[in-house]
This record gives sequence, structure tokens and C-alpha cells, in this order.
Amino acid sequence: MTLTHKEILQLDKYYRIHLINQLSGVKGVHLIGTKSDEGISNLAIFNSVVHIGANPPYMGIIFRPLTVERDTYNNIKSNGHFSINSISEAIYEKAHLTSGKYASEISEFDIVGLTEDYCNDFTAPFVKESPIKIGVSYQEEHLIRANNTLLLIGKVEIIQIDDKLILEDGHIDHTKAATVSVSGLDSYYKNELMSRRPYVRI
Amino acid sequence: MTLTHKEILQLDKYYRIHLINQLSGVKGVHLIGTKSDEGISNLAIFNSVVHIGANPPYMGIIFRPLTVERDTYNNIKSNGHFSINSISEAIYEKAHLTSGKYASEISEFDIVGLTEDYCNDFTAPFVKESPIKIGVSYQEEHLIRANNTLLLIGKVEIIQIDDKLILEDGHIDHTKAATVSVSGLDSYYKNELMSRRPYVRI
Repeated sequence: MTLTHKEILQLDKYYRIHLINQLSGVKGVHLIGTKSDEGISNLAIFNSVVHIGANPPYMGIIFRPLTVERDTYNNIKSNGHFSINSISEAIYEKAHLTSGKYASEISEFDIVGLTEDYCNDFTAPFVKESPIKIGVSYQEEHLIRANNTLLLIGKVEIIQIDDKLILEDGHIDHTKAATVSVSGLDSYYKNELMSRRPYVRI
Repeated sequence: MTLTHKEILQLDKYYRIHLINQLSGVKGVHLIGTKSDEGISNLAIFNSVVHIGANPPYMGIIFRPLTVERDTYNNIKSNGHFSINSISEAIYEKAHLTSGKYASEISEFDIVGLTEDYCNDFTAPFVKESPIKIGVSYQEEHLIRANNTLLLIGKVEIIQIDDKLILEDGHIDHTKAATVSVSGLDSYYKNELMSRRPYVRI
């Protein structure tokens, strides 16, 4: 099937959402933990966390346009800290439930049955059940003019990861961590390592 | 293991590259096809393609700082068009070979043994062997001040996908497409659908 831009715009709305969201393939999925000015914890699932740099370590998140209330974004802007937590097979069904539009006064940790965890003096909550936890501080943001989405950049302040998941050279064993991935907004995939390819020297 | 920002900076360079690149989990991996002003095709592997929007459809790519020659970036800026091609199990070893630093005068299609394909009047080459092909035009870019990486945004102009991979409601069957994912720069994973979770209504 070949579809032009014009034909894509003419597709049924939900057909288009599924197709275009899944076009870029299977991607990482994470739980973002934040805390409001009122001290209420928030937990939300995102499929748009991106690696920005390793030295110094930075991560990014794409936010949809701020036309509706976005607790996660607002909390990051006022508190300055957020956590990025990996989603394992054991918790992905609970993680998916955080996509519901709950009132800001309620913590999604309580609603879906995940446990808040804190580390050092970092103010945002981590997910105790997540094998890989990243504490991040707000750094900068960019408004994408094409459609008013936002790229938010954060600096990695702290990471917590089970020693058993890290190989001798720093590689992370995501099969052992049972990290799940997602296509679109609803299709969850498990990951199985096929091979590590050697650095290509020419 | 708990590591602070300062401790991360003190890690061995390659240990840090592996750890931080793999921290955000298993993500999509794609071949970007471009053409230079001199008419030479270029093909390069990226693990930083992001979904930006479905209506109208936009995609993004994160580029590392332009401190060395970046053929893909230069070709996109001068030609205006590029292709994003999915990587299946059948071609992932060839796809990985495009990460070598070959001279700009040589086409990676020829070096790694993948086939150039064209569609309508779209000027950038697609990868014939890729199950999902996306033709994209340059839209805008953002310089991330924290570390001089770039986010480049493109508009989806055309998509080509095997009818057998699209379900009735627009979902794409990435298990059937045998789409691979990557952790870091070298660890390739296969994807197996676990389940589709229902939209969360509250």
C-alpha cells in the first residue's frame, strides 16, 4: 500500500492514529514520576523518551501540545525534578492504567498499585518495582512549531539499577530486566536479544 | 547500584557510553536514505527516530553534534527529502554495517548490499528490502543547547507498507514485519507482541 500525505489526511481518524503512531516501530516505554506543588505524586506512561547524550548524560521527552491539562509537564516545570522508570513484564499492565485521565488530586501510584520510592534528596518519586530508575532535572525545552509538541530536555542526576542487570562493560541486559517496549499507544512487546554486532571499523 | 551525576562523569568512557546509551531501554532503529547534491546515495543507521504527530503526520530525528562530517544531515539540508526505512531481522546485519565511516563518494547501498528503490517523484532513495518505508520532507530543526545535539523535524510525504502488515483498524503487525529494535549502538532485539491493552476509560 502506498499513501501520500494528502491520502493520510483523508484516512479515518482512528485508523490514521494507529497507523502513524505505529509506523516508526516498536519503541521504549517508561513511567514518568513527578510531584505537584501540593505534594501529590503523579505517575504517567510515555512512549517518547529519547536518549540525548552520554557525557554529560541527558534525556529528552516529547510532550503532546499543552491544549489540555498536563500534570506531568506542569509538575516538572514547577518542581524541576522528574523520574524515568523502566517498565518490566511484571508491571506493564499496571503501567498502562496510568494513561487514564484521573483527577490531579489523586496519585496514580495508589490507583494502579505501584509503590513510591525515594533516593537521597531527590524530590520526585521513583517506582520501586522498576528495574531501572533515572532521576532527571529540568534543563531546557523546545516548542516544535509544526504542531506545537514540546521537546523537554533533562540532565541525569542519579541512576538506580540492579547490579545483576549490568554486564562487565556497562551493557544492560534488557532481556534479564524483562523491559517491555510499545508500538503506538496500546501494543506491548517483549524484547529478546538476537545479537551484539561488532563496532564497524573500515 | 546507585550512581550520581558526578559518579557517572567519573566512569570509564566506554562503560559510560554503553550504560547511558542503554539506560532508556530498547528502542526503534531505522535506516535513513538520502541523496547528495552530486547524486550519490547515502544510507545510515539511526536509533533516534521519534514520532512527533499523527495529524498531520510528522517524524523527528536526533542528530549528534555536527563536529564531524554528517552526510545524512548535510544531504537532508540541501536536498530537502529523506527516507526512514524499517529494519527487519532479514537485513539487520547489513543495516548495522552502514554505521562504518565510509567516504562520501561511495553509496552505503552498494557497500552493504541493499537495494535502492524510488517512488513517484520523491528524490531520496528508499530501501527496497524494508517492510515499512516513509518518505519525509524537511520541516524545522532545534539546537539542543545542553550538548549541541539537533532535533530535526520532517513532514511525512509518503508511506509504503505491505498490505499484509496492516490490520483492519490501522495497527501494524510488527511481529509479522519482523521489525528489530536496538539497545545502545550494538545490541539488536527481536520483538514479540505480548498483548494489546484496552484504552483506559475512567
